[in-house]
Amino acid sequence: MKLYTFFRSSAAFRVRIALNLKGLAYEPQPVSLPKGDHRRPEYARVNPQALVPMLELDDGTRLNQSLAIIEFLDQRYPQPPLVPEDALGRARVRSLALLIACEIHPLNNLRALNYLRKDLGLLEEQVNAWYRHWIAEGLAKLEAELTQSPGAGSFCHGDAPTMADCCLVPQIFNAKRYKSDLTPYPMAMRVFEQCMQLEAFDRAQPSKQPDASE
Amino acid sequence: MKLYTFFRSSAAFRVRIALNLKGLAYEPQPVSLPKGDHRRPEYARVNPQALVPMLELDDGTRLNQSLAIIEFLDQRYPQPPLVPEDALGRARVRSLALLIACEIHPLNNLRALNYLRKDLGLLEEQVNAWYRHWIAEGLAKLEAELTQSPGAGSFCHGDAPTMADCCLVPQIFNAKRYKSDLTPYPMAMRVFEQCMQLEAFDRAQPSKQPDASE
Repeated sequence: MKLYTFFRSSAAFRVRIALNLKGLAYEPQPVSLPKGDHRRPEYARVNPQALVPMLELDDGTRLNQSLAIIEFLDQRYPQPPLVPEDALGRARVRSLALLIACEIHPLNNLRALNYLRKDLGLLEEQVNAWYRHWIAEGLAKLEAELTQSPGAGSFCHGDAPTMADCCLVPQIFNAKRYKSDLTPYPMAMRVFEQCMQLEAFDRAQPSKQPDASE
Repeated sequence: MKLYTFFRSSAAFRVRIALNLKGLAYEPQPVSLPKGDHRRPEYARVNPQALVPMLELDDGTRLNQSLAIIEFLDQRYPQPPLVPEDALGRARVRSLALLIACEIHPLNNLRALNYLRKDLGLLEEQVNAWYRHWIAEGLAKLEAELTQSPGAGSFCHGDAPTMADCCLVPQIFNAKRYKSDLTPYPMAMRVFEQCMQLEAFDRAQPSKQPDASE
């Protein structure tokens, strides 16, 4: 399998964690977002969404969208499971993953920040405030979910990593990079620390990717 | 079942379509986003994410995040299926749904627009340009997916509605409301028109909801 990835893309980071948790080898294909590699015609031809991550299977089939890729991996390589079997557990894990993937990340990705900087001419200080605002709003909701809704254990759901943790960890990396105050989210941070003990999470982090030197 | 909904919320609209396609009756519980009902403590107590839609099952269990809710409904009430059975079909439908749910909608929801208006003091003209920018970017990707990746039929995937169509239709409603130019997306619009022939989609539209008079 080939993974079209960028070291700092948190959506690609999610899939790298899932591949590592499943023990699946893959060939990384770096796509530099700051250089606009994803917008080049040769990439758009193979990827209509012109985004990373994209997973290319050995037969050439290409899959887009990090959560769709993780669910695919979970169906094809069921062990260890990243989405629980029971309908309510599945709903909870997906809901936590989507809370991060829909309520925080899209507002803070490179595309959105570039629009604020270039099209709207905002100051870097305003862009940083925007970034931290959505982190704070989203992580407060996540913290409330982890503490109020039954199901959390040493990980977001139970005592083994799931797709929700694959989303949480890259989001916390981003929050740290933008110097967000993380003290209001002790439960989320406890789960983060727990995840980072695992080699699968550690090895997937941005600074350990082949394209990180960029 | 009770659905906490707001007539104009496109995430709630997705779930209303899914419930209608499944032939499931539900009791709508209006939550006015402009009035801030979702931020009231009594709502946050039952919903840690403080968002709509939320589905409350007859036993009191509460589910959040539109795509997680639709997947839950699909598992519990399998007919008609809204996510295909085969792993690649599932990945494609989820990828299209997530393209809308992650790449377009979060940038254009009320929360984001309010930040642009109130916190950043942008002009209404700038807010509208932002709105249409993300619609145009996202729908171009969707159109490319529908025309380039194999699988589209009279609907986004094959010849029956799926979770992808549950996301497409509310997004087109939003685009029309903000007077986006939709001529560059003939395939997406053909699917939209096809969906709107179905009573399940028509009955779920904002203007036909009990709280629409607001």
